[in-house]
Amino acid sequence: VRPFTGLPDGIDPRDPAALRRAFRAGASVRSTAALAPGHVQGNLVVLPADVAEEFAEYCAANRQACPVLARSAPGDPRLPGLGLDFDLSTDLPRYRIWRDGEAAEEPDDLRELWRDDLAGFVLGCSYSFDEALAAAGVTLRHAALRENPPYYRTSIETVPVGRFRGPLIVSMRPLSPADAIRAVAITSRMPRVHGAPVHLGFPEHIGVTLDAAANGADPRLEPGELPVFWACGVTPESALRAARLPFAATHWPGAMAVTDLRNADLIER
Amino acid sequence: VRPFTGLPDGIDPRDPAALRRAFRAGASVRSTAALAPGHVQGNLVVLPADVAEEFAEYCAANRQACPVLARSAPGDPRLPGLGLDFDLSTDLPRYRIWRDGEAAEEPDDLRELWRDDLAGFVLGCSYSFDEALAAAGVTLRHAALRENPPYYRTSIETVPVGRFRGPLIVSMRPLSPADAIRAVAITSRMPRVHGAPVHLGFPEHIGVTLDAAANGADPRLEPGELPVFWACGVTPESALRAARLPFAATHWPGAMAVTDLRNADLIER
Repeated sequence: VRPFTGLPDGIDPRDPAALRRAFRAGASVRSTAALAPGHVQGNLVVLPADVAEEFAEYCAANRQACPVLARSAPGDPRLPGLGLDFDLSTDLPRYRIWRDGEAAEEPDDLRELWRDDLAGFVLGCSYSFDEALAAAGVTLRHAALRENPPYYRTSIETVPVGRFRGPLIVSMRPLSPADAIRAVAITSRMPRVHGAPVHLGFPEHIGVTLDAAANGADPRLEPGELPVFWACGVTPESALRAARLPFAATHWPGAMAVTDLRNADLIER
Repeated sequence: VRPFTGLPDGIDPRDPAALRRAFRAGASVRSTAALAPGHVQGNLVVLPADVAEEFAEYCAANRQACPVLARSAPGDPRLPGLGLDFDLSTDLPRYRIWRDGEAAEEPDDLRELWRDDLAGFVLGCSYSFDEALAAAGVTLRHAALRENPPYYRTSIETVPVGRFRGPLIVSMRPLSPADAIRAVAITSRMPRVHGAPVHLGFPEHIGVTLDAAANGADPRLEPGELPVFWACGVTPESALRAARLPFAATHWPGAMAVTDLRNADLIER
């Protein structure tokens, strides 16, 4: 991985539009997790228009893993619903290019690769619900350690649609029973960012070995805690591998699309 | 226990007002659980007015166990908010009288015992959320067996107010992880009928031995299920014992106040 520049001086890390302008101008960060608090961040998937409808149907059939927040018109990299100036080809810190289902280059923007037939999807991300959980006083160990939560490939298959298929990927947060109850209550009201957990309590029932996280993260489950599993935005990566498209692009893991939407507006009352 | 008469012929078991008229006329049933589906049933507590305010404060401090749905004016047994003709001194199938904190008589009505200084409270009951859970497809073993769920005294103390104090009593439902998640999501939106669970997963953490239910019920926890615990309407009985009032009355366990309110109206959106 090429060095990250970090944010230039003078950029307000709370301002999503200022962050996008900085990324557009070449700044790069390893993670957007602590940036633009209160604002929605999302997973990006860019595909040729001829498979976009199939991917949209895959997302609709697997809403917990792939909740679509916004979709761009083919050839147009703008997504004004996420920010008036939002350009998905330039406004993320870093990108990952997929060729024939394999991760290939990792450019800082998609300017050179952009084509008139590309369409983008921004999908909800757990950063939004982690913020809601922390605001409610739920203790999140990975956040305290400034790490990503462990994630796992499960034995649960997503609903296949056309070329898109593959296992459900989940992230895990170790929680006390009281926090697990609060976390279910809170995230069940946030269906646009993965919603309620898909499982808790028995990792082996969903084909998960806690010590074997796909991202190598330590599960750090303490006695008296329950492992609580949410559908994860890494799931579409797995579907992209299965689809073996000649070309696709995503965000670089952890460096998300930062939008003007507010997390508070994602909570269904 | 004196024999129960059952419902007389010609009474529509779906009609809460018809059921109340039948109970007022002397009919008695062991349980109101399957009656008046869709309608709210409640726990009854009747107290002398000089302790009613203290009890109201106890309920407010322990809302999950004692969610007040309605409260009558001293001396007036009517609660028109629960049904235009609702008379809490006659409209329940059977009552239990408490003298100096001990269960004493079990009359079919409170006519002879009524006094100008008595006030009644109707508290939310798990029948309402059990109905919501069943409607959502959550498997409730106790309901399938037409039994009450096991309940337990916990090591958690309620917040004491004046004479009222004592352990939190909980009911337990064994649920698959997926059903436990749905049950938390649903009941967290029903705070007027105990709300979200108070615990799940580790009975010993709340001082509970699963095989030693206070009502003798079999916990019937199957492998792969989690024990899920909700604050229970038996808690105020425990507080009545502690308060040792010269006189108090409650519903007979399982034979609740049947109201015209609708369970659907208890769900907070």
